[in-house]
Amino acid sequence: MDYQFVINSLYDKVSNEPLQGAVANYIPELAKVNPKYFGVALTLTDNTAFAIGNADIKFSIQSIAKVFSLALAYSLIGDEIWQRVNVEPSGTSFNSLVQLEADLGLPRNPFVNGGALVICDILMCQLEDAKSQLLTFIRNLSDNPLIEYSPNIAASEKTNGFRNIALCNFIKSFGNIKNHPNDVLDLYFDLCSIEMSCSELSKSFLFLANNGCKTTDGLKILNYSQTKRINAIMQTCGFYDESGEFTFKVGLPGKSGVGGGIVAIHPNLYSIVTWSPLLNEKGNSVKGIHFLEQFTTETQYSIF
Amino acid sequence: MDYQFVINSLYDKVSNEPLQGAVANYIPELAKVNPKYFGVALTLTDNTAFAIGNADIKFSIQSIAKVFSLALAYSLIGDEIWQRVNVEPSGTSFNSLVQLEADLGLPRNPFVNGGALVICDILMCQLEDAKSQLLTFIRNLSDNPLIEYSPNIAASEKTNGFRNIALCNFIKSFGNIKNHPNDVLDLYFDLCSIEMSCSELSKSFLFLANNGCKTTDGLKILNYSQTKRINAIMQTCGFYDESGEFTFKVGLPGKSGVGGGIVAIHPNLYSIVTWSPLLNEKGNSVKGIHFLEQFTTETQYSIF
Amino acid sequence: MDYQFVINSLYDKVSNEPLQGAVANYIPELAKVNPKYFGVALTLTDNTAFAIGNADIKFSIQSIAKVFSLALAYSLIGDEIWQRVNVEPSGTSFNSLVQLEADLGLPRNPFVNGGALVICDILMCQLEDAKSQLLTFIRNLSDNPLIEYSPNIAASEKTNGFRNIALCNFIKSFGNIKNHPNDVLDLYFDLCSIEMSCSELSKSFLFLANNGCKTTDGLKILNYSQTKRINAIMQTCGFYDESGEFTFKVGLPGKSGVGGGIVAIHPNLYSIVTWSPLLNEKGNSVKGIHFLEQFTTETQYSIF
Amino acid sequence: MDYQFVINSLYDKVSNEPLQGAVANYIPELAKVNPKYFGVALTLTDNTAFAIGNADIKFSIQSIAKVFSLALAYSLIGDEIWQRVNVEPSGTSFNSLVQLEADLGLPRNPFVNGGALVICDILMCQLEDAKSQLLTFIRNLSDNPLIEYSPNIAASEKTNGFRNIALCNFIKSFGNIKNHPNDVLDLYFDLCSIEMSCSELSKSFLFLANNGCKTTDGLKILNYSQTKRINAIMQTCGFYDESGEFTFKVGLPGKSGVGGGIVAIHPNLYSIVTWSPLLNEKGNSVKGIHFLEQFTTETQYSIF
Repeated sequence: MDYQFVINSLYDKVSNEPLQGAVANYIPELAKVNPKYFGVALTLTDNTAFAIGNADIKFSIQSIAKVFSLALAYSLIGDEIWQRVNVEPSGTSFNSLVQLEADLGLPRNPFVNGGALVICDILMCQLEDAKSQLLTFIRNLSDNPLIEYSPNIAASEKTNGFRNIALCNFIKSFGNIKNHPNDVLDLYFDLCSIEMSCSELSKSFLFLANNGCKTTDGLKILNYSQTKRINAIMQTCGFYDESGEFTFKVGLPGKSGVGGGIVAIHPNLYSIVTWSPLLNEKGNSVKGIHFLEQFTTETQYSIF
Repeated sequence: MDYQFVINSLYDKVSNEPLQGAVANYIPELAKVNPKYFGVALTLTDNTAFAIGNADIKFSIQSIAKVFSLALAYSLIGDEIWQRVNVEPSGTSFNSLVQLEADLGLPRNPFVNGGALVICDILMCQLEDAKSQLLTFIRNLSDNPLIEYSPNIAASEKTNGFRNIALCNFIKSFGNIKNHPNDVLDLYFDLCSIEMSCSELSKSFLFLANNGCKTTDGLKILNYSQTKRINAIMQTCGFYDESGEFTFKVGLPGKSGVGGGIVAIHPNLYSIVTWSPLLNEKGNSVKGIHFLEQFTTETQYSIF
Repeated sequence: MDYQFVINSLYDKVSNEPLQGAVANYIPELAKVNPKYFGVALTLTDNTAFAIGNADIKFSIQSIAKVFSLALAYSLIGDEIWQRVNVEPSGTSFNSLVQLEADLGLPRNPFVNGGALVICDILMCQLEDAKSQLLTFIRNLSDNPLIEYSPNIAASEKTNGFRNIALCNFIKSFGNIKNHPNDVLDLYFDLCSIEMSCSELSKSFLFLANNGCKTTDGLKILNYSQTKRINAIMQTCGFYDESGEFTFKVGLPGKSGVGGGIVAIHPNLYSIVTWSPLLNEKGNSVKGIHFLEQFTTETQYSIF
Repeated sequence: MDYQFVINSLYDKVSNEPLQGAVANYIPELAKVNPKYFGVALTLTDNTAFAIGNADIKFSIQSIAKVFSLALAYSLIGDEIWQRVNVEPSGTSFNSLVQLEADLGLPRNPFVNGGALVICDILMCQLEDAKSQLLTFIRNLSDNPLIEYSPNIAASEKTNGFRNIALCNFIKSFGNIKNHPNDVLDLYFDLCSIEMSCSELSKSFLFLANNGCKTTDGLKILNYSQTKRINAIMQTCGFYDESGEFTFKVGLPGKSGVGGGIVAIHPNLYSIVTWSPLLNEKGNSVKGIHFLEQFTTETQYSIF
C-alpha cells in the first residue's frame, strides 16, 4: 500500500472542497484559529510516519485528551473504573444533564463531559499531583517533553465554562465526585487545553493500535484487554451524538475534539490524525470526517 | 487455530456455570422453552462449520431477523434508506417512545422496534408480496427452503403487542409509516416469528463476513460498502441498551434476540451463533455473552 | 353587576381585535369552520342567562367533553378513580407519550388524552352501554334531549387519530386499560365529537358552580367535595400546557377544546362559555382567553 | 364561624395522628429539629389572630421565602419579570435540571429552585444591597424588625448545595443569570435561611389575602392584578410536584417549605400557617396538609 500516495491524493481532493461548517467560538482562543488549516498525519505500528499539510502546527486537542486521562486512570485502578462511569453511548448531547439525572449521576461513558470529569476526579484521588503527572504521562506517550497545557485556553474555559461547572456540581450532588468540584474542574480545563500537532497526536495514540505497548520503546501502558476496551469505547462513544454515523462511515474507533482534530485507530496497523477547525453541527470536523471516510474506503481498511 | 477445541472447551465451561437470568415470558410460546438449551455454531468464510450442543434445534430468532429485513431493504433502495431511519445508538430501551417523540418519528436505528417497523414499511412499498418475498430472501441466504414463519408465535405477538402497536401508530402520526399500521405490524410480527437453528443462522449471516457475497454460490447480496455499514450498525446498536457493553466485552458486531440467540460477525473470518434462552435484565442471553466474551479473548479475535 | 352590559362591551372590544391564530386543521371537519364565529354565554346559578354573538351555533366541543366523562365516572366509582389517573399538571404537551413512559402508564390527569382514555375505559367497565348512557348523562345535565355525537367528526378522528391509537395501546401495554384499545378509542372519539352551543354548554356546566347540583331541578350529580375537586383539576390542568398561564390571567377553573370553546366556572356564581375557533400555538382560543381575562378583571371576579 | 374552636378541635385530632414522614436531613441544622413540633396560626384580614400549639417557635421557612422575593421583584419591575421566568407548573421535581434543558434556561415558575435563583438575580440587578433590602422588605411585611437570616443555615446550605450550584451555573450557561453565579447563590441561600414563627408568617402573608395591601397600615405592596397573579402561581406551583394534589385536597393557593411550614391564603378572608417538620416523600409537611384539608372541608372555605 503506497500510503503517502493515498494520503496526498485524498488531501488534494478534500482540500479543494468548499469550506463548510464553523470554527468553535465559545471561547475567543478557539474562535481565532485560521479556518483554512488542514493537516493529516499517519503513523504505522512499525513507526513509519506520513504527513501532509499543516501536520506540524499545534492546535487545541480538547476532548481528544479525554482518551489520555482515561488510559492513565484505567492503568491505575483497572476495571474498578467502571463502577464510576458506564460504557454506553449517550444518545444525547455530550454536555447534557438530562441523562445524568436519569442515571443518578453515573455518566454514560468516559467521553461525555460528565464522564471525563469523573475520570479527572479519579486521577486526583490516585495521584499526588494529578496535573503534572498527567502531563508527564502524555509526554511519555509521545516521547516529547515539550507538550504543554495552555494556560490561556484553560483560563478562558474556566471563565466561560458554566455548563461544565453545572455538570460537575450536579454529579457531586449524587456523590460521584469525591474531591471539591472546583479542583476537579481545574484539572478538567487544564486537560482540555493541551496543544499538540497531528504528528505528535498520531505518535502518542499509536499504543492503542499496538495492544497497549508503545512502539518506540515497547513500554506497556495498558494490557491487551484494556486496550481492546478503550478502542471499543472510542468506537461507540467517540464522536458525541454522531458516533453511530462515524462508525457507519469510517468504520474505525476514534475520538474528535472541538478544536477540529480527529484521531482514528486501526488495531495492529496504524494511528491516523486529521485536523481542520471547521465543525459540523454535531461538533466534529467536516473535512476530517470526509478525509477518513474516503481513506478507509480507498484502503478497504475499515475494521468491519 | 483449532476452532473445534476452543468451542468445545468453552462450551463445557459455560455449560457448567449456574443458570442465571430468565426466559422471555411476555408470550406463552417463548415462556415454555427449555431454559437449559445451549447451542453454538461457527462457520468460517471457507464454509468450514463447527457446532456443539443444541445447535440444530430451531428457536425463535426474534430481533435477529431485523438484520435480514434491513439487508433486503438496503439492497432494494440503497442509501435512500437513511432518510427514514437513523444510525445512532439509542441510549434508551429498545421499545422506548420517548426518543421517537424527541426525534419526531425518525427511529434512532434499524434495530430498535420503531426502526424495524419502518424497514417493514419500506419492504411493503417496494415489494408486491413482502411477506413471501422476505421469506424467499432468507431461505436463499441460508440455502434452506424449509425456513418458515411461526404462525403461532406471530399470532401470540399480535395479541399481546400493545407496545408495538403504540410504536407503529406513533410513527405513523409523524408520517414516517406509509402503509396502514395494522399491515406493517402484521409483517413485523411475522418477521420476528421466524424459527432457525444456530447452524442455519450462522450460515445465513456469513455473507456479512464475506463482503456481502454468499460463500456457497458467490451471489452478491450487498456491496462492500453496504456490508461494512450493516456491520457498523450491529456494532453500535445490536444489543439494545447493552450495545456498548457488548462492544466492550466481545468486540465484534452482532445482534441478539429475546429468544436467546446471538449472532456475531468477524469480518473476513467467520460468523458465530450462540443460543441459550436465559436472558439478563437488558434482554440479552447470559450464556451467549459469556461464551462470546471468552471466545474473542481466547482467540484474540476481537476487531479492536 | 350589569352582566349584559359587561359582556356586550367586552364582546365589542374583543370582536374588533384583528384575527390571530389558526383554526385546528388536523381533520377536515374542524378546518372548514368559519374563523370569524365568536359567541359568549353566561349563566348565573339562579339560572339567569346572558348571551351575545354566535352563542347558539353548535360547534365541536372536543376536549371540553372530558369534563363530562370525568364527572360521570367520578359519580360512579368515587375516589377509587384516582387509582387509575393522577391529578398533577403535566408540564408537557397534552398528547405526549414521554411522561406516560416515566409514569408507567398512569396518566398525569384526566384531561390529557391518556387520562381521558382511561376514564372512557372506566365508563365501559361500569356501564352496560357506555356510549348511549354517557350521552344521556350529558343531555340530562343540559336539559336538552337533542344533544348528539357527530358521526362525521368521530369517523374523521378515527381515520387520523394515530397518536391517540398509540397512546391507548401504550397505556394498555402497562395494564391501565382493561377493555380492548379499539373499543376504548371508539368511545373516546365519540365523546370528543359532541356538538353543543355556548348557551347549551354554559347551562350544562352550571352544576360545577352549584356544589354539584343542577340548578334547574336540584338533581345532585356530584357531592360537595367531588365538585370542589373537579374544579381544582380544571384549575391546574384545564388548558394543556397553558394551564398556569390561564390561572394566572383569568383566575378561574376552566377547560378548553380545540374546537375553540372555553368553559370557565366561578364557584357559587356562574358558568361562562366563549367560542372562537382561532387557536394560539398551545391550542387554546385566542379571543376566548382575551375575553375571559378582561371579564374577570372588569368584574373583579377572579377567585384569587 | 368560631375559628378558634375549629382550629382547636382539628389541632387535637391531627396532633393525635401517629407521626409519619421524615424530617429534612440534607443539612444538619434541619435534621436536628424536634419532629413533634406542631403549630398553627390564622390571621383574618381584619387582623384578628388565632393560634395553637408551637405557633410562636421560629423555624426555617425555606422555600416559603420565595414568595417574599417574588413579591419584591414583581413590585420592582412589574410584568417584565415574566420574560425571565415562566408561570407553568413543572410536572417534575423542584430541583430538576431536565426541564431547564428543554426550556433553554427559562425556569418553569418562580418557585422551582431555578426560578427562585433567577428572581434573586433580578433583585441583585435592581437593588444596591439586595441582601439587606430584601430583609427590610420582609420585616416591613411582618411589622417585625427582629426577623433575621440564619448564618448557620445559610453556611450549611452553601457547603452542601451542589445541586443548586449546578442549577445556577446551568441557567447562567443559557444567559438567564446576569450576575456571577456565586453571588446569586449567596443571596439564594440567605433567603432560604430566614427563620420565622407561624404567627409571624401568617401576619406577613396577609397582604396576599387583602388585594396587595398590608392590613395593619394599609401600605400597598402590590396592585390588585399582581396580587391575584401571585396567588394563582401559588395555586398551580406552590407545592413542588404535589401542587395538583394540594389544590385538589385543600383548594387554596399556598406555599410549602422543607422546614415543614405551609402558608395558605383565602383571598379576602385570611392567611393560615401550619408547621410540622415531618415531610412526605414530595417534601411537604404531612400534618400540615392533613390539617388544611380538614380545615377547608370543615369551614367549606375552599375557593372552588
